[in-house]
Amino acid sequence: MSNTNILYQHGTLALLVPGLLDGTITMKELLTHGDTGIGTGEGLDGELVILDGKPYQVDHRGQVNLVDDNFTLPFANIHWADYHKLTSVENIEQADLEKKILSLTSANTFFSIKLHGEFSYAQTRAVKRSSKPYDTLAKTAASQSIFEQKDITGTLLSYYSPEIFDGAAVGGFHHHFLSDQRDFGGHLLSFKSATGDVELQQFDTLEQHLPTKNKPYMDFDFSGHDILGDIHKSE
Amino acid sequence: MSNTNILYQHGTLALLVPGLLDGTITMKELLTHGDTGIGTGEGLDGELVILDGKPYQVDHRGQVNLVDDNFTLPFANIHWADYHKLTSVENIEQADLEKKILSLTSANTFFSIKLHGEFSYAQTRAVKRSSKPYDTLAKTAASQSIFEQKDITGTLLSYYSPEIFDGAAVGGFHHHFLSDQRDFGGHLLSFKSATGDVELQQFDTLEQHLPTKNKPYMDFDFSGHDILGDIHKSE
Repeated sequence: MSNTNILYQHGTLALLVPGLLDGTITMKELLTHGDTGIGTGEGLDGELVILDGKPYQVDHRGQVNLVDDNFTLPFANIHWADYHKLTSVENIEQADLEKKILSLTSANTFFSIKLHGEFSYAQTRAVKRSSKPYDTLAKTAASQSIFEQKDITGTLLSYYSPEIFDGAAVGGFHHHFLSDQRDFGGHLLSFKSATGDVELQQFDTLEQHLPTKNKPYMDFDFSGHDILGDIHKSE
Repeated sequence: MSNTNILYQHGTLALLVPGLLDGTITMKELLTHGDTGIGTGEGLDGELVILDGKPYQVDHRGQVNLVDDNFTLPFANIHWADYHKLTSVENIEQADLEKKILSLTSANTFFSIKLHGEFSYAQTRAVKRSSKPYDTLAKTAASQSIFEQKDITGTLLSYYSPEIFDGAAVGGFHHHFLSDQRDFGGHLLSFKSATGDVELQQFDTLEQHLPTKNKPYMDFDFSGHDILGDIHKSE
């Protein structure tokens, strides 16, 4: 049943911008589409990292929690892991890593990157849950928590989307991070000097699922909003 | 096996712009994803309309041909038909029809419209096949054939994509047409005064398939191209 060529996406990046943040998929349902992924909870409740079928949430205090089947999400990416080694890196900086990856694989399809290794520095953020009426992404971003750690071992889990899908997905790289100790992580803002194996999984299909049973989403008028502009300010 | 909530798309609108026009899916394979759809052939070889599992091609001379299993396409949309009546219209103009549809259903998910009825006027176009090296979309559009007919009975088959997917898909409405006599059709440029039943099928999933085995596509550098600008000039 599991097709390792498919990247499943629930929701769009765009719906986060005006704050359409109802949880429209349960973790139980999400995990039928893969064992590896990222996302955020209802109301932008933290940053999710799913590894080996285990859904970890980094909340706005920086605490890492395993969430249960009933946890709901407005936005998530998930797939069935089938990574292959792409390259090894030693003390590589973030921009150089991204450049190296794109020199080794096509920028015209979706892929995921997993880098398990040591990082001399990592800076992450986690957003804080708002309740209805939800905050806009810009407002949430303004009150996000930022965490940093030196000399940390963990997993960088990234998705890459071709630029033409920017707005529906995060165009380019979207990085999340989780430490081996499960005590640090979130949406990765930056890192320094990474050493480890870089694994790649390329997809030929994006399965884009939209929350068509959610009335606030379906009724929303996106036309007056500069969705892409707001995304690029916040991501 | 057939899921009527899924719109399957092979290729992207964007890849047509610089002329990445290899046929990367066969009609045989495409028809495993639905019985109703639209598309174009390798090298922009005409305009396709698939109805009840039958793939009709309107070629650049305006002739309507049934194509066989080995016909290949760089871009197509297809789904399993399960339409429901949305409304009836009488002597409605194109802009009013589109407005009426959007007043009755959400603009935030993918859907298909089928309008079988009488049209007092219809203007279509069909593009002409180019060979390798393929022409750009702008060049092909400049040499397209335009056809028109008065008082014609036929089927308007349309797909609607949310604006955030513009570039990957055709943002907004994308209309194709085929006459009942199977002697007129193509990409619909405009129509006047339509009368008939309007049927709707809403999707919750876009299954976006990319031609990852096609080297010209995978190696192409889209970054220097104004893809959206060129699309809006040509579509």
